[in-house]
Amino acid sequence: MKRTHTCGELNLTDLNKKVLLQGWVAKIRKMGAINFVDLRDVYGITQLVIDEKLSKKYDFLKNEYVIEVEGKVIERKSKNKDLKTGEIEVEVSTIKLINKSDLTPFEIKDNIETQEDTRLTYRYLDLRRSIMQKNIILRSKINHIIRNFFIDNNFIEIETPVFGKSTPEGARDFLVPSRLNPKKFYALPQSPQLYKQLFMISGFDRYFQIVKCFRDEDLRIDRQPEFMQLDMEMSFAEDKDIMEIIEAVIKKILFEVKGLDIKEPFLKMSFAEAFDKFGNDKPDLRFGYEIKTVDSIFKNTEIPLFSNLDNKTIRSICVNGLLNKKQLEELTESANQNGVNILAFTKFDKNEWSGSIASKLSQKEKKELVDFFNISNESTILFIVDDYHKATKAMGAVRSSLGKIQQLCNPNDFKILWVVDFPLFEFSEEENRFVAAHHPFTMPSDDCLNTFDKEMKKAKAKAYDIVMNGFEIGGGSQRITDLKIQERMFEALKLSKEVIDKNFGWFINAYKYGAPYHSGCALGLDRINMILSNSENIREVIAFPKNSSGIDPMTYAPDLVTESQLNELNIKIKE
Amino acid sequence: MKRTHTCGELNLTDLNKKVLLQGWVAKIRKMGAINFVDLRDVYGITQLVIDEKLSKKYDFLKNEYVIEVEGKVIERKSKNKDLKTGEIEVEVSTIKLINKSDLTPFEIKDNIETQEDTRLTYRYLDLRRSIMQKNIILRSKINHIIRNFFIDNNFIEIETPVFGKSTPEGARDFLVPSRLNPKKFYALPQSPQLYKQLFMISGFDRYFQIVKCFRDEDLRIDRQPEFMQLDMEMSFAEDKDIMEIIEAVIKKILFEVKGLDIKEPFLKMSFAEAFDKFGNDKPDLRFGYEIKTVDSIFKNTEIPLFSNLDNKTIRSICVNGLLNKKQLEELTESANQNGVNILAFTKFDKNEWSGSIASKLSQKEKKELVDFFNISNESTILFIVDDYHKATKAMGAVRSSLGKIQQLCNPNDFKILWVVDFPLFEFSEEENRFVAAHHPFTMPSDDCLNTFDKEMKKAKAKAYDIVMNGFEIGGGSQRITDLKIQERMFEALKLSKEVIDKNFGWFINAYKYGAPYHSGCALGLDRINMILSNSENIREVIAFPKNSSGIDPMTYAPDLVTESQLNELNIKIKE
Repeated sequence: MKRTHTCGELNLTDLNKKVLLQGWVAKIRKMGAINFVDLRDVYGITQLVIDEKLSKKYDFLKNEYVIEVEGKVIERKSKNKDLKTGEIEVEVSTIKLINKSDLTPFEIKDNIETQEDTRLTYRYLDLRRSIMQKNIILRSKINHIIRNFFIDNNFIEIETPVFGKSTPEGARDFLVPSRLNPKKFYALPQSPQLYKQLFMISGFDRYFQIVKCFRDEDLRIDRQPEFMQLDMEMSFAEDKDIMEIIEAVIKKILFEVKGLDIKEPFLKMSFAEAFDKFGNDKPDLRFGYEIKTVDSIFKNTEIPLFSNLDNKTIRSICVNGLLNKKQLEELTESANQNGVNILAFTKFDKNEWSGSIASKLSQKEKKELVDFFNISNESTILFIVDDYHKATKAMGAVRSSLGKIQQLCNPNDFKILWVVDFPLFEFSEEENRFVAAHHPFTMPSDDCLNTFDKEMKKAKAKAYDIVMNGFEIGGGSQRITDLKIQERMFEALKLSKEVIDKNFGWFINAYKYGAPYHSGCALGLDRINMILSNSENIREVIAFPKNSSGIDPMTYAPDLVTESQLNELNIKIKE
Repeated sequence: MKRTHTCGELNLTDLNKKVLLQGWVAKIRKMGAINFVDLRDVYGITQLVIDEKLSKKYDFLKNEYVIEVEGKVIERKSKNKDLKTGEIEVEVSTIKLINKSDLTPFEIKDNIETQEDTRLTYRYLDLRRSIMQKNIILRSKINHIIRNFFIDNNFIEIETPVFGKSTPEGARDFLVPSRLNPKKFYALPQSPQLYKQLFMISGFDRYFQIVKCFRDEDLRIDRQPEFMQLDMEMSFAEDKDIMEIIEAVIKKILFEVKGLDIKEPFLKMSFAEAFDKFGNDKPDLRFGYEIKTVDSIFKNTEIPLFSNLDNKTIRSICVNGLLNKKQLEELTESANQNGVNILAFTKFDKNEWSGSIASKLSQKEKKELVDFFNISNESTILFIVDDYHKATKAMGAVRSSLGKIQQLCNPNDFKILWVVDFPLFEFSEEENRFVAAHHPFTMPSDDCLNTFDKEMKKAKAKAYDIVMNGFEIGGGSQRITDLKIQERMFEALKLSKEVIDKNFGWFINAYKYGAPYHSGCALGLDRINMILSNSENIREVIAFPKNSSGIDPMTYAPDLVTESQLNELNIKIKE
């Protein structure tokens, strides 16, 4: 038999209809001899009324049994306004048992305290919980919004290979031994970067793809070995064209998913400014607390920590309210984790000063602090003294912790910005050379086109990150399409001709055959889904994620394989 | 500067407009001192007229150079009706060189005789050819039609993991060594089969996904190590529900892509009938030539081959027209490849009989053949004598060759059918036991529900394949959701409890917690794209495919990796 309705759609307009429903028993309540059963499916819950006779016949029914019922829609006496179907109930005439259920290892409800590995072991039950179902449905919706947007804008979705070639630049590759080509390995793509650039050379001038990518890195809270990316690239396009299209798609997502009307163009902030004001390149702009330099206030100070600065500087944040000891300890911990020992502070409360440095603050310093930070109410001023980079970074971490401690991060507020003017290079202590900050195919900024390979520290890139609520949700760049600039780039990176030929020869070669200029971007979809569903980590928005050891506790993947499988692949385990 | 138009859109309504175009030089024709240049992008070609002065200045322009031009749209004297822009040309006022091009290793045009490995080595240039661009664009379009269809029908697209667990049943897995879990391996999914069944247990009652799958098999013409699948599953659904939805999506694709209005429901044919009439389970119904049994006509024959049949039978096809020697040799070759030595034949031409058995045909046999096959015109009758299975299979191969020889396969005709009532089991000579014909979670047919594990040879499955123009483009089944039936299935397959627990325990366990009945289907998108684009093989519809050795001649993937990469993964090459 086919259901006439789902469990989420009946209401007063359906009164007296004969209906057939199928679903899971979510709750059984006995009222005398009558049973009230909540029948659940992915669309909602409908209340069933089961009379004495049927209740007796089906007294074995338990939670999570799957049943099919026929009955009549009647009006409910005590209506439930929280439920879409809360105005009606179904007076059941027949019940059919579809399948039984053992007692589930945890309750099927939103707030459970079950350990995550247990949830992952029984993920199919975890995914019965409405909070998880909402996340998965939201994800499907967001993917579809993105696809419709790009297709409507004349982009073509083109699939790129999962079996690619390992290149030593970049993060660690996952490898797949090739049975047909002994001793050789495919590498799983960290992104379709090179393929999408080739599409531009092919003439597909508006490419996009929603695609799985892979990185064999140690796992952190926001990392999975496999992750989903929106990848796009445009020919005859520069950074502003890419930003325009990415802003439009994000605007559309936020409108369709959250009903918000975000204004474009998004704020643009240089990397230098973001670091100076917020101590990182992905500032959460849902709250203020900009980091300030207060060296001049303490020019003649008696506070030992603030004296004799030499190469050091005093970076400071003025916080609303009086932080308590526990909060200050937590903030100090954030500073410590960033290599800074001391988080100095002073509190201002009705013209009274207290805190670690208060006793040594001069009247002049006090007045200048009040003026500088424009203090009128209870405040706590935090200070870190160290070299600019270290002090700023540590204060950035303190600021992020402040956001959490003072609950300044409204999950329904979305603050988005572009961070631009990134350095073209980073100095790698490990390799004792400059390496590409983005990747070695990133175009230098116009103003350093002649000098990027001579003044590498100063060189800027035509690269841009997009940041939402303190998370980098994507980034991109204009690519080098001039082989002379590409050669200078490789020389600057001290890559030998041999290394280049071996790893990128096939790719660079393509640029000999008529390449248009092009730019692109990639967005991290797991992270965007995490933010938009207000989830604590990306595993909450992935149907079957790996735990932090890279293991799926449900299937026990990864697992041992047979000797004959290894033999066929021509490999051995190293003991 | 931004282009005002693409190279595929200007026409007479744009006369006198100032335009800016960007694209590739596709052709340069000199007419005296004036140059006519075809400017190409993915949208089309626009003719540029370049005056004497500019032609001189840009005399270095060559094919595949990328340029930007400004100019005015004027009417063309000799119009080209084959071109969307054939009524106009652009009188160029300025030219800007964007990038140069070396001489390409093959011409950028549709019909080239270049070796496939050369095309793959320079795939980015191969993808400049309009025939390849059409294939890639069609593919994007078909994917989008499918997604819109399923989303519009309340399906949810859910992503399943690429990193899964290896199971010994089924085809060979690709393996990925886990660095974080030494000695252990992930397996890449051959399909999301088990995950999608778990979604049904979770309550997502309408799942779909367009997803990459992987099989480490020896490569044939229509196989790639990675392939795209449309995967779907529905709860509270049986075979007829799945067929209905799959028919609707295929109808929609054919309508939107080909403008055809295909009638549903599609033809359903039992596996037994398909094999009997066409010698395989994926008949091409674009032409007739059904295989017939003619034993009774030759009951008293003098033809030695047709006498004393014992366990043998005579299977026959009557072909329109007189096949020549070369054609008959080709057909005999098809029979030979299927283990049959002799393809007997007789030709009928204006009441004259000729051919290998003609001299021994009695008058009665001749008359009966004419009546049986209803022969009125020139015909060739083919015969194979062998046991039923072998003779039928070989005649099926002969029939397929006939379709090619007589060009009976109109690529714009689409004949689709469901093949149903498949055997539940196949006997594996290798393992000396029955194995699951589909997979061990396939529901037995209603009429053998009590006997499938006793009369295994006769048992039928609730499985169905969908066939288009002689290709299996998909298939599916209803799944076992009753643990008692599943246990009987495992026993019938002689799988030990240990093997089951190790490989499927986690999966079977899920069915203890309230499973709805469910069915599903998967479609092979590479193959569908191949058929709909009228391509010779699936590599023509994949942007960056592997060649028949599993190699990408462009990137040289797979390739050797470094010793330190192997060390990190805890594996060694076996010498």
